[in-house]
Amino acid sequence: MAVQALAGWNQSAAYGAALLDLLRKVTTVDGSILRPCYGEGEQRAHDLMAQAARELDLEVRVDGAGNLIMTLPGSDRQAPGWMTGSHLDAVPDGGNYDGAAGVVAGLAVVHAMRSAGVVPRADLAVVAFRAEEGSSWFSGPHKSHFGSRAMLGQLSQQELREARSLADGRVLYDILADAGFNPDQIALGRGLLDRARVSAFVELHIEQGPVLVERRLPVGIVSGIRGTLRARNARCEGTYAHSGAVPREYRHDALLAAAELAVALEAQWGDWLAGGRDVVCTLGRFMTDPARHSLTKVPGEVQFTIDVRSEDAALLSQARGFLEQTALAIGARRGVRFALGALDIGSPARMDAALQDDLRALAATQGIASMTLASGAGHDAANFALAGIPSAMIFVRNDHGSHNRDEAMDPADFASGARLLAAFLIKHA
Amino acid sequence: MAVQALAGWNQSAAYGAALLDLLRKVTTVDGSILRPCYGEGEQRAHDLMAQAARELDLEVRVDGAGNLIMTLPGSDRQAPGWMTGSHLDAVPDGGNYDGAAGVVAGLAVVHAMRSAGVVPRADLAVVAFRAEEGSSWFSGPHKSHFGSRAMLGQLSQQELREARSLADGRVLYDILADAGFNPDQIALGRGLLDRARVSAFVELHIEQGPVLVERRLPVGIVSGIRGTLRARNARCEGTYAHSGAVPREYRHDALLAAAELAVALEAQWGDWLAGGRDVVCTLGRFMTDPARHSLTKVPGEVQFTIDVRSEDAALLSQARGFLEQTALAIGARRGVRFALGALDIGSPARMDAALQDDLRALAATQGIASMTLASGAGHDAANFALAGIPSAMIFVRNDHGSHNRDEAMDPADFASGARLLAAFLIKHA
Repeated sequence: MAVQALAGWNQSAAYGAALLDLLRKVTTVDGSILRPCYGEGEQRAHDLMAQAARELDLEVRVDGAGNLIMTLPGSDRQAPGWMTGSHLDAVPDGGNYDGAAGVVAGLAVVHAMRSAGVVPRADLAVVAFRAEEGSSWFSGPHKSHFGSRAMLGQLSQQELREARSLADGRVLYDILADAGFNPDQIALGRGLLDRARVSAFVELHIEQGPVLVERRLPVGIVSGIRGTLRARNARCEGTYAHSGAVPREYRHDALLAAAELAVALEAQWGDWLAGGRDVVCTLGRFMTDPARHSLTKVPGEVQFTIDVRSEDAALLSQARGFLEQTALAIGARRGVRFALGALDIGSPARMDAALQDDLRALAATQGIASMTLASGAGHDAANFALAGIPSAMIFVRNDHGSHNRDEAMDPADFASGARLLAAFLIKHA
Repeated sequence: MAVQALAGWNQSAAYGAALLDLLRKVTTVDGSILRPCYGEGEQRAHDLMAQAARELDLEVRVDGAGNLIMTLPGSDRQAPGWMTGSHLDAVPDGGNYDGAAGVVAGLAVVHAMRSAGVVPRADLAVVAFRAEEGSSWFSGPHKSHFGSRAMLGQLSQQELREARSLADGRVLYDILADAGFNPDQIALGRGLLDRARVSAFVELHIEQGPVLVERRLPVGIVSGIRGTLRARNARCEGTYAHSGAVPREYRHDALLAAAELAVALEAQWGDWLAGGRDVVCTLGRFMTDPARHSLTKVPGEVQFTIDVRSEDAALLSQARGFLEQTALAIGARRGVRFALGALDIGSPARMDAALQDDLRALAATQGIASMTLASGAGHDAANFALAGIPSAMIFVRNDHGSHNRDEAMDPADFASGARLLAAFLIKHA
């Protein structure tokens, strides 16, 4: 495939930047981005992308989960083709780029190919997934990422029936049915696409951490999407006692026990990092009981959460063992009881090694400074990798993190990241 | 003074036990002890004791703070006399003995002296203080212990005007005025008693910790009342961040920083104890911000309290320095900021050394097994010691701590403690 298709890239990058600006305009309400999963703002974003796709003369269809699939036909329409894309929904009061940058980047690549008259060998589909931010908009027992997981046959009947909109209380099944999509097809569990016709998936996304900003690099190549070990409802139970009258040897202080566990986990984290392992550890909620605690009481209870993430499934298992054993040892020594609750593991998703190598080589060829890093946040690409489809991800530098209105992606960085995507798809598609 | 006055002690102990039972009966409402500071239940307790005092033919008067003073006249009415007593109010849903045991013990001692026809050299006053539990019943800037501190000229005009009843919103000044007491006399700041006529003060009180229960001893002799170093509104400020996407080196985790401070204080506490110092340390409230924290966010803020108590004023100063320096060092290393707020020191109050010696010798003579221990809770006796009046305290074993309805003092232990008080007062008064 002719890399000279990128000769006019500046125009395609500008096309993408303008499309992102337009998206912001049509989905801003009272100064905030408003694109709830399966809500009006998300639909407006889908409508805008569908219109752009038709203007690029792409085939446009919507699947049973409401995902938008915009296809540039290949010269061999039967051959397995590539997919690229991301999601268009956003967290409440979020930014314009988390998700949308990947959809628009796909359209910009197609714009470049159309401009240069390049026809891919097989179909190239740009996909806008639904509801990647389900955790922010739906309660109930669910794993979010409704669109891509429905497409891949990973969304369960329980999720369809029990994931419930925080906005209006409807369950996901009813929302899909009311919108004219096809929840019954999803419920069959076979997925909404012919897997044999997909050769690989690549997603461009803003980085949600500070690594590229700190390293002054516009583009990252993702090694894998970290899995999670989570305790959502951990507790340490000690004994409430008078803070002045009870000597140390008779205390069972839940706070000091839980603090010791936190410090021990941090020390173990340091050891893992020193050994070259990928891992981050967070105790995000951590509190004595507001109904019972006091300046003058030894704390009898602490409630807390644990979120350990790693690309390395073995490390997550080790972390579970470490936490269980350390909690047991601290509890026995201090006469307190840890109830860590369910320590759920969500599998990490490795990005395809050969595709990573390609991306690194192409970045070098294109003169795009880049580094390889893990993704700590979840992405639709993880579901493709877990479904056995070779997957890759490109990160674009973004200041101030994501999931907030201060999200800030420089158009020049978007142009660089999308150019790498273009070079990659032109080579492969 | 004739120790044979104790020949009929069993009758006086039984008199005291019966008076405690009657007190419980007249101040129980819907199954709970109800004796709020300056409330109806406390007044009922004062009325009961005043009636008992009149039956013992004591002189009964009420001072400008509502304290009840029940005097057994001495043979020399001009000589400085002894005082004994405690308070009659109780925390919400508290027990029957915290405070009241000391008042009733004083009356039981007088009962024994009256029965044996013993007349003290100088006046012996049994006092029932008001409102020792002010912290539970009053908001605003105050140091509680309203009755004994008013008596000793320690209650400020600000406290009179700003301590506010949690029950009805009235300030202390108005409560005293409405009850017919004399807040204007208190406001003069000279105290309500002639200090030259008080030679010493002794208070019997239940132990509020588990030490006597654990050591299987009925009686304790108090070495001193611990002072306090308190941070009521300490905070650690870091930076909220994505729990998956931000590597360790870019985090400013307020929770891990605060946990490190807690663990460091506990280690320093161990060193102090190993060096023979008296100290207890508590972080009673400790919480990430419920409005902002989440399983998937690095905590950007922790709020907590610190309560360090020691008999040793120098240690409290050292603890302040340790906390300030450690917080600074942790903050600098982690890129977080500790705001410990005011680190207020409340002075410890030493019990008189010679009086302690006397109590130990008398306990041995009387065959009462005892030990010497610090009081971690505050007591009216501390205010007497801080006023320069030689003071002593006797603790009585009590199960389940205090400030709760499960407070449990064995009548036999009360009899032993009050007998030591009787032997002490018969020797000195």
